[in-house]
Amino acid sequence: MNDTLERLAQVLSERRHGDAQSSYVASLHQRGLNKILEKVGEESTELILAAKELEAADASRLEGARLELIKETADLWFHSLVTLSHLGLGHRDVLAELERRFGVSGLEEKASRSAHSQ
Amino acid sequence: MNDTLERLAQVLSERRHGDAQSSYVASLHQRGLNKILEKVGEESTELILAAKELEAADASRLEGARLELIKETADLWFHSLVTLSHLGLGHRDVLAELERRFGVSGLEEKASRSAHSQ
Amino acid sequence: MNDTLERLAQVLSERRHGDAQSSYVASLHQRGLNKILEKVGEESTELILAAKELEAADASRLEGARLELIKETADLWFHSLVTLSHLGLGHRDVLAELERRFGVSGLEEKASRSAHSQ
Amino acid sequence: MNDTLERLAQVLSERRHGDAQSSYVASLHQRGLNKILEKVGEESTELILAAKELEAADASRLEGARLELIKETADLWFHSLVTLSHLGLGHRDVLAELERRFGVSGLEEKASRSAHSQ
Repeated sequence: MNDTLERLAQVLSERRHGDAQSSYVASLHQRGLNKILEKVGEESTELILAAKELEAADASRLEGARLELIKETADLWFHSLVTLSHLGLGHRDVLAELERRFGVSGLEEKASRSAHSQ
Repeated sequence: MNDTLERLAQVLSERRHGDAQSSYVASLHQRGLNKILEKVGEESTELILAAKELEAADASRLEGARLELIKETADLWFHSLVTLSHLGLGHRDVLAELERRFGVSGLEEKASRSAHSQ
Repeated sequence: MNDTLERLAQVLSERRHGDAQSSYVASLHQRGLNKILEKVGEESTELILAAKELEAADASRLEGARLELIKETADLWFHSLVTLSHLGLGHRDVLAELERRFGVSGLEEKASRSAHSQ
Repeated sequence: MNDTLERLAQVLSERRHGDAQSSYVASLHQRGLNKILEKVGEESTELILAAKELEAADASRLEGARLELIKETADLWFHSLVTLSHLGLGHRDVLAELERRFGVSGLEEKASRSAHSQ
């Protein structure tokens, strides 16, 4: 059911044409694709740096470093979802692609897995 | 339920300690965090370029360009999931963070949305 | 002589321990390596987007798009020079590496070029 | 005089229309702008990871980590120069922009420096 992404998609869709002053989603769409893609690039770099911090964290910084990596990954997924929405696509397309590759949609699983081992 | 990501997480976890010769997931973990993060960086760039191609595509290239962007987004999500798995985290942490931000987990929705408008 | 980079290196070195309130260079060093590397990631994405704009630009936007790509490349080189400076290295190391690869420092040129053709 | 970049630019220009089988530069141009920009994105990520390795390196790995960062920076500059060359621009444009910003081209230096403090 992929409920979280489903509901998030609904939120993104509702806010797309909202007020750019009060909605970050609306302001991203209004500023255009390049601005959205700049954010994808930024968040990807921040995910990479957060992963290195977590790898190097000692016990005292572990929880903070975990939270940081989770936040950066959420930022990256969020901005990639805004990219898709801006171009008329959505999370279902991506999940279908992942299912196709990894055979994770139930019955096809076994067949797909024998065919390719990613 | 987030079924696709749930099942994908299971596949990633099963393959993590598998045979690096036959499993791409196992080989990524074996090559280490830097190699996984290089892939995150690569896929982020490829998503950006695919989005620009789709934006510029005329009718004849539209379907191919859409498919390409979906594939690159799947690649980016996949490698960010491998990053999380490598560091002991998972998709549920990210979905919980997205729910927290966007109030999309049901009852909290209304309260969260009034507090911040992302 | 690589004069421009030489003088820029001098400026970077002078400002490194300057006042972070008035010098961007000093403020970058003070905020630390992760912040500097975030900028490298950002500028790399902006270079990529500017190159795509220039590729797609019609005559009326050509000059602006050229200027934009030049600025983004300058930003990327600048922040990579700050990275080097932060870690005790400099542009001379990079130029020496480029000379080594491309045999562009005079007499070695012919020998190097026959050895590898990059 | 910026000799190294000047000679490298000459090499890049000579090889641009060379044999893609024997020249990496020629093959990049032949594969097109997206392929060149993918390399810029890759090298930027690798510079970031190499900088983090150098930051964390103990005495025994210091020299190797320094060399690695220098190589990744050379790769990034090289591919940004190929990007410029592909689009009809060159290193002189970037150096002129850096001079303009940092007032490092001689007499203007003092004036420029008082006007802005980057």
